[in-house]
Parts: sequence; C-alpha cells; structure tokens
Amino acid sequence: MNLVIVGTMAYDAIETPLGKTDKIIGGSATYASLSASYFTKNIGVVSVVGEDFSVDKLNLMQQKNISLGGVEIKKGEKSFFWSGKYHSDMNSRDTLVTELNVLANFKPVVPENYKPVEFLMLGNLTPSVQLSVIEQAESSPKLIALDTMNFWIESALDELKNVVKLVDILIINDEEARQLSGEYSIKKAAKVIMDMGPQILVIKQGEHGALLFKGDNIFFAPALPLEEVFDPTGAGDTFAGGFMGYLANTQDLSFDNMKRAIIYGSAMASFCVEKFGTERLLDLSAEEIELRVEKFARLVDFSRSFVS
Amino acid sequence: MNLVIVGTMAYDAIETPLGKTDKIIGGSATYASLSASYFTKNIGVVSVVGEDFSVDKLNLMQQKNISLGGVEIKKGEKSFFWSGKYHSDMNSRDTLVTELNVLANFKPVVPENYKPVEFLMLGNLTPSVQLSVIEQAESSPKLIALDTMNFWIESALDELKNVVKLVDILIINDEEARQLSGEYSIKKAAKVIMDMGPQILVIKQGEHGALLFKGDNIFFAPALPLEEVFDPTGAGDTFAGGFMGYLANTQDLSFDNMKRAIIYGSAMASFCVEKFGTERLLDLSAEEIELRVEKFARLVDFSRSFVS
Repeated sequence: MNLVIVGTMAYDAIETPLGKTDKIIGGSATYASLSASYFTKNIGVVSVVGEDFSVDKLNLMQQKNISLGGVEIKKGEKSFFWSGKYHSDMNSRDTLVTELNVLANFKPVVPENYKPVEFLMLGNLTPSVQLSVIEQAESSPKLIALDTMNFWIESALDELKNVVKLVDILIINDEEARQLSGEYSIKKAAKVIMDMGPQILVIKQGEHGALLFKGDNIFFAPALPLEEVFDPTGAGDTFAGGFMGYLANTQDLSFDNMKRAIIYGSAMASFCVEKFGTERLLDLSAEEIELRVEKFARLVDFSRSFVS
Repeated sequence: MNLVIVGTMAYDAIETPLGKTDKIIGGSATYASLSASYFTKNIGVVSVVGEDFSVDKLNLMQQKNISLGGVEIKKGEKSFFWSGKYHSDMNSRDTLVTELNVLANFKPVVPENYKPVEFLMLGNLTPSVQLSVIEQAESSPKLIALDTMNFWIESALDELKNVVKLVDILIINDEEARQLSGEYSIKKAAKVIMDMGPQILVIKQGEHGALLFKGDNIFFAPALPLEEVFDPTGAGDTFAGGFMGYLANTQDLSFDNMKRAIIYGSAMASFCVEKFGTERLLDLSAEEIELRVEKFARLVDFSRSFVS
C-alpha cells in the first residue's frame, strides 16, 4: 500500500461562533485520508468504528479510493464521539463530551493486503497502540510520520519517546514541541526533538503556519489569511494527510520536495476550515488546489534585488 | 529631511529570564532612528529628554548621521523612564514602573531645517500630539506612517481615527488591529482599517512575522526562528525604523518595494532581540544585514514545480 493511515474515525458535534452541527463524521483518519486522496489513489485506513457509523460515509470514502479493509466495525458498539465548542478566537475550545466507546479497546490490525506499507502515518493515539502498528508493518516503510498530543507527553512520556525514536517525521504543534523538549525557543526545541530520533520535524503553528526542520535546514510555510474560519476541527489532520499524500505520491524525500509537501498540506488545511467538518474536502478539484498553492507562493514571494 | 522620526527617547530598566539591566537608553525614536540609520543618512528625530539623558548616547546617535535638532532637552527635568519584566515566554511582560517625566507635556516642534519632510514616521504617542506633527510638516510628505497602541484605541478612539485618516501607512500588531476594527479575522480587520484612511497596513505578529496589506494585495514576511530571544524591547520600533529607512532611501512606493522594506525591517528586528536594549543596533555591517535578509528569503523559498 502506498499510504497507510492509522487513526480515529469518529462522530463530532461542533459548535463555533458561526454555527452548530449535529453529529457529523470526523476523526483523524477520516480527515487525513480524505485530504491524502487528492494526491494518491492507493490509501489504506486502519481504524475502528461502531455499528452506528454511517455506511454512506464509508462508501463515500471508498469511492475516493480509500481502502477501508483495516477498519474494524464493532457490532453492538458505538463509535468514538467528541463534542466541542470553540471560543470566539477559534484558536481555543472546550471539550463538552468525550465518549471513547470503541476506541477504548482499539487494537489496530494492519491487513495483509496493506503490506508492504510504503508510507505510514500514525495519527494521535496511545503511544503503545502506535508502536504496535510499527511492529506490524512488514519490512521497513520508506517513511513513518507520527502525530501526538500534550495528553501523551504528560501521561505516557517514556512510551511516547520509544515510539518517537522509531519514526522519521514527528508532526506536532508549537506548544507540544515546547512541552516535549522543555525548551521555549522553537529552534532549540526542534534540535532537542530531532535528537530523540526523527530526522524531520514539522511544527504546526495554527493560524500562523508551519515550520519544517531537517538537520540545519528550516522552511516556513505561512498560513493564508482567511476572511472566515468556519470550523478549525480537523485542520491539523488534513494538513498531515495532504503532506503525507503528496510525499507518498512523489516518492521524493528531498528537503525541496518536503517543502512542497508542506505547502500542499497547508493548502488542504486552508480548505478544511472553510466549512464544517469534512464537507469542504469532499469535492475539490485539482485546479482549485493548484490555485490555492499559487496563493501561498504569492503570499511570501519577494524579489531581493532592488531595481529602481 | 529624507526621514523624520517622532517618538520617545527614554531610559528603560529591563528584566528578562536571561538577565537584567540598569537604566539603559530606549524609546521608540531611539530604536527606530538607529535602525533607519543603516538605510538613509538623512534622518531627523523629534523627541524630548531630561537633563539626565546621556550626552555620550546623544553623540553616538549623531555619529550615525541622526540629526537631533528636534530633540528638546528640558533643564531640571528627568527623561521618560520605563521598567518592565518579561515573562518566560518573552511575549508578555509586566510594567513595573512608568515615569512620564518630560513626556507628560511633550509638544513636539519640527525644526525648520527638517522641512520639507519627505518621509514621516510617527511613533506611538497621544493621537493629538501625532496630529500636531502632521500639521507642522510643511507641504505634504511623500509618506506618513503611524504607530499606535491599545491604550489609545481604548481611551482616545475618536482622536486616533482623525489621525489614522491622514496617514498612508498604519503599523500595529494583530491584537490592536482586532481591537481597532472590531473584527477577529485579520483579513477582515485589514479591510475595515484601510477603509478608515491608510492605503497600506502593516500588521505585526511578533514571533510569527508581519503582514503587509495594500488594496487586495497581501504579503507575509516570516520571522526567523531564533535560538534565543534575549530582549524583545524595541523590536517593533526597530522593525518600523528599518521599514521606513528602506523606503525613504529607495523612494519607491510600489508594492514590490514595500515587500522588500518589510523584510529589511524584519531583519533589523531579528538583530535587535539578540542583545539587551539597542546594543545590537550599534555596530552592524551592511554585509550582516544582507546575509540576514538572505536567510529570510531562504526560509520561505520553495519551487512549485516538481521535477523528479
């Protein structure tokens, strides 16, 4: 399989200053695989859902060439459910409800037909669960990327470090980078984290963009200033999915190509926040994506030489 | 005069997690003029100091071709004094002491030999004081830039709007832009503010960089990820001084040249924070500045086309 994505498939109920949803589909694997599906047609998801999960939505994902052979459907159980309310700044939110349901005993199994895994993306999950997937991936994937969160840094640091040691790319946000490294300076934090194992580090800065580190190389991808952020849910997973999808398709692990991958990931995230949930990720055209990437290029483009 | 800078010249006592200073020179006009002095040799400052202000420091500024003919030295009075302590994140600070002293009755007078004023930079001061300078500038300057702060937005909004109406460029930070416009989205905020008068808006985002708006054009200048921020005091004024100095020297008000000016301003600010106070701004070489600008260019440079 070109790209295997392990993560949650869930129901979310979201409230933002601009509106409110009933239960809609969400989850890191949902966002990431939909985003990646614009770049590679050979994607397999490993996840778990309950009997309540919409068959229509599963079909919709499969129509986008996302294989769901690794998604366990647990009879008589309910899907992971999260409900949250965003503050007026859209950068912070309160969690109203978290019902783990099927996620409580999630033991991901990588199906035989997913192997060998070329590119592996491990969404935010218990570090021991992430580790079990790496152990199942036959032979060594070309690239393993890992997402995690402050909760695991606080509650399972040793386990997390064992996983971090085994991956090529860690994708986290700036606060998590500071917490994991114990350094406030993002540049120092990046060095400390790369010493833990990953050759490549992506630090997401929300509305401010993302930084890519590899050795002494640094690249900064801006975020597009948007008129309206409708719903930030899933933006980080959409970013990661676009990034990994682009890499999996191009198969080029040079720093120059990673820069492009980051820009494509950022473009996908900029679409994601324009509507509730995964809605905006369902019907994008290649042209729309290229135009968005062009906007990112123009945003930071300047000519150094002064010609009067 | 090619560039006239109106603002404070002060004593600061600064404490950061990395160290502490006795009274050192500071003030918006000090930082801005030192920064601008690397770009134009025809700068005049309008400010006020007390009898206690260091003659050595005044001489040092004059050696950098900064004219101080517009700096009133008030006999028997003391200079503006500010003391502050930065929190560990370096993004927030507590003001420990503010002694207005000579600033309490500051009535700036633009000396005859500064006129005509080509480029005018109005540092953060009472809006009515800023207005009085615009009225004194003989004929119309090619470009007027204005800095302000949340305090005036809260306490003197009508007066402030009267000044904002008369200027070409407003330079504020993201929180101030939100407060002044009543819009959370930076893009919407920019539109509202440009409708108030200024054709051009610069929104500083601290460690995240700066945005430049002109009509529908947007440019984003990143901030360099630094190993260590030693002292953020004056970074915003240093940025504005470099920006205005570059424009005043090149005399090119095109959007492309404004982009370059923003990058030069950002480069100057990145030096400023490396040491306490104005120290790092005293002995830079043109080569160092060009190398820093080159770093900014590399940070965001990516090639859109994929060549396998």
